Amino acid sequence: MSVMTYSAGTKTLTVTNLVNTRAGNQRERSHSQDMDQFFKLKRPDEVFEIIHQFAPAGEETIPLEDSLGRVLSQGLIAPEDLPGFLRSTMDGYAVRARDTFGASEGLPALLEVTGEILMGRSHGIEVGDGQAVKISTGGKLPEGADGVVMVEYCSLLDSETLEVSRAISPLENVIQPGDDFEQGSTVLKEGHRLRPQDLGVMAGLGVSEVTVFRRPKVAILSTGDEIVTIDMQPRPGEVRDINRYTLGAFCKRLGAVPLYLGLCPDEFQPMKRMVEEGVAQADTVWVSGGSSVGTRDLTLEVFETLPHFELLVHGISISPGKPTIIGRSGLQPVIGLPGHVASALVVAEVFLTRLISRLAGYSDPIDRFSNKLEAQLSQNVESSAGREDYIRVKLIEKGDGLMAEPVFGKSGLISTLVEADGLIRVDMNTEGIYKGQTVRVMLFDQVDGGHG
Amino acid sequence: MSVMTYSAGTKTLTVTNLVNTRAGNQRERSHSQDMDQFFKLKRPDEVFEIIHQFAPAGEETIPLEDSLGRVLSQGLIAPEDLPGFLRSTMDGYAVRARDTFGASEGLPALLEVTGEILMGRSHGIEVGDGQAVKISTGGKLPEGADGVVMVEYCSLLDSETLEVSRAISPLENVIQPGDDFEQGSTVLKEGHRLRPQDLGVMAGLGVSEVTVFRRPKVAILSTGDEIVTIDMQPRPGEVRDINRYTLGAFCKRLGAVPLYLGLCPDEFQPMKRMVEEGVAQADTVWVSGGSSVGTRDLTLEVFETLPHFELLVHGISISPGKPTIIGRSGLQPVIGLPGHVASALVVAEVFLTRLISRLAGYSDPIDRFSNKLEAQLSQNVESSAGREDYIRVKLIEKGDGLMAEPVFGKSGLISTLVEADGLIRVDMNTEGIYKGQTVRVMLFDQVDGGHG
Repeated sequence: MSVMTYSAGTKTLTVTNLVNTRAGNQRERSHSQDMDQFFKLKRPDEVFEIIHQFAPAGEETIPLEDSLGRVLSQGLIAPEDLPGFLRSTMDGYAVRARDTFGASEGLPALLEVTGEILMGRSHGIEVGDGQAVKISTGGKLPEGADGVVMVEYCSLLDSETLEVSRAISPLENVIQPGDDFEQGSTVLKEGHRLRPQDLGVMAGLGVSEVTVFRRPKVAILSTGDEIVTIDMQPRPGEVRDINRYTLGAFCKRLGAVPLYLGLCPDEFQPMKRMVEEGVAQADTVWVSGGSSVGTRDLTLEVFETLPHFELLVHGISISPGKPTIIGRSGLQPVIGLPGHVASALVVAEVFLTRLISRLAGYSDPIDRFSNKLEAQLSQNVESSAGREDYIRVKLIEKGDGLMAEPVFGKSGLISTLVEADGLIRVDMNTEGIYKGQTVRVMLFDQVDGGHG
Repeated sequence: MSVMTYSAGTKTLTVTNLVNTRAGNQRERSHSQDMDQFFKLKRPDEVFEIIHQFAPAGEETIPLEDSLGRVLSQGLIAPEDLPGFLRSTMDGYAVRARDTFGASEGLPALLEVTGEILMGRSHGIEVGDGQAVKISTGGKLPEGADGVVMVEYCSLLDSETLEVSRAISPLENVIQPGDDFEQGSTVLKEGHRLRPQDLGVMAGLGVSEVTVFRRPKVAILSTGDEIVTIDMQPRPGEVRDINRYTLGAFCKRLGAVPLYLGLCPDEFQPMKRMVEEGVAQADTVWVSGGSSVGTRDLTLEVFETLPHFELLVHGISISPGKPTIIGRSGLQPVIGLPGHVASALVVAEVFLTRLISRLAGYSDPIDRFSNKLEAQLSQNVESSAGREDYIRVKLIEKGDGLMAEPVFGKSGLISTLVEADGLIRVDMNTEGIYKGQTVRVMLFDQVDGGHG
């Protein structure tokens, strides 16, 4: 098949035999249909690996002020020393350290006070032998001084005579130019997601614009003849478009930008037009729905008409979320999600979080289960070996710890998602988890990603 | 003094003797200065309690689409049943359950297929005795039918004759109107921060606008004669405004809106004018700086001129961050933060996260230490009993777990904040933590709050 090499940031791309593989895929599908196993299920770890091959969407340069939560597409090199001058870290007196050598409470050193350093002022003050100059925290040391005696160890005998009761060593209570960052050194690495203090340091270095990866743009399309927009009063049999809002908010939470393509009937031509529009306007296209029997494979049929399409995943061995499709049109991921919002959201939390972190250029993919929140399971949960199960749980404080109570409910209900605080994972190789066992909980309301 | 009762949402306020207490505060301050203990340190738990008394900033009604991460100021009541009709949860045939009673593989029931339910269509189809109608997942059950036989248990003998090999009970494989939410029931409670699935459920219920607490507006003011804006080339002794960017990003991350008042020299009148502007335009005012000896109490002097000012906290027994001021002008919190960004950020993470969660109306205050991430300390850390210490740590993967390595550095450096992944807390009543002990780590890059 085709061989691709992606590399973050520079978007190097080597494509061998990247032709439209539609014919091949169609053969594959007929074959698997014959096998009475429509989906060729992939394990979650295989899916993670496939997702990891996608490359960041691109870069842009933005004002420092807007860069919180964004990801550096280039390492940041210090354009100058920080701090830029010898600074006091204490309130006290700037002196020549050697003038304090031997000073003690019993035998204080006596120095002549010749002035005071005003904050932020360029001063011509010098400290000579036996002299001291008053200085505040953050002040620039006067020429000649190489340390600061804390005010606690100083007492003025008169306006010009200072008694110092403690010796300091050279460079005591000061920071030197470059102590934070030397000019030319790496301050932050490529792939780093910017935190408040990172913005602060960049401000300190005078970096007013930052080159970051673009926020990935996600085209979202809800399909289904029964779906109406939320401002409509549904007629009997119709339901409002839940997935648009859920998936759109999911994207926003991770710092991606949703682009709503609208509603699509379960028909080939309209869906093809809309998916093509998504591929043209966004970095990835997510189609959810197609729940009626006859239209379930419509999404894939449409994907197969895209230029340079390759089917990467057709079914994942998880529950819920099995009928997920992941393909690519050239470099762009195109995703088919289950129509039911609970299934779609599980797939999004587990897999599409990683897709967005790839497109957004994070050096480490976001793993929603990495938060290490643990709880005890309140009852036995059964599962089938050979697939990974994701169970909605409610967290209840219990003594010192937390109890995870499974939220069960009929398939098709969405209130279970609202009632639940998070998800637990039942591994492929187990047939369930026993009551009392410790489980790790992915919280629905904890976020590692994007900001406003 | 004054007695205040706040109550979230309704903003009930009972104020006894809420007069300008400026004179009183000044007496207090002279007194404490006399005591050679300028600050009257409060313990962190006392500060939390004080912060908890502030009330949400106000409410507004916004489009559903923009409501991710926002906090409901009113509980949400279901305006209609969800689902709105009897829906199939499976692909199969809608039947009268009693027609399948006794059916088995050996003795299947034979039913007459009279039609098919098309998704989203209002249909006049009825299911009579001995009849079956084809239906897809999510379809509206036809009149007369009370359950769905899964397609796996059905086989068509001819176009009109269906063999059913399994009995169903009434209401099997369907969800009924109101199974998710009955009209009039509470869907989401006041104080709930909206997650993607909450937006989905509201969409399902046709809720296109949501009443939420306003995002708190935070006026940010950096003081210090040595501070210049980041687009300036600092002259000797000057430094760029780091705090504005750090604190502004901190606010944004929690969903608050920073309002930059600009730079302020260490002078009473200009600072007074700017703080008054902040009180007029924002929900809370944060002043950071005032590092020079003579101006350290300038912030408080200015605060004391505000209408209905009350000093609530003057110094907290933590390190770093001791010289923090919390007061209020009427209902508005006014905050004085240490000038050094590392101290200011620690105070913000530990205390102002809670302040913002109060102003934003969260039902549970955000506790940045609640993430339960644990690590083993890599070396002994000393601390003074009687104060809470916050130590910057770097996390290093080590075998199965994580190791927290303290990031030490000279006071005054800011690179330590960039190098660190988070903070650990050393309790008041200990004199340190030993190497190998388990510590809980607050991560700098983990966020529980606001979204775009």
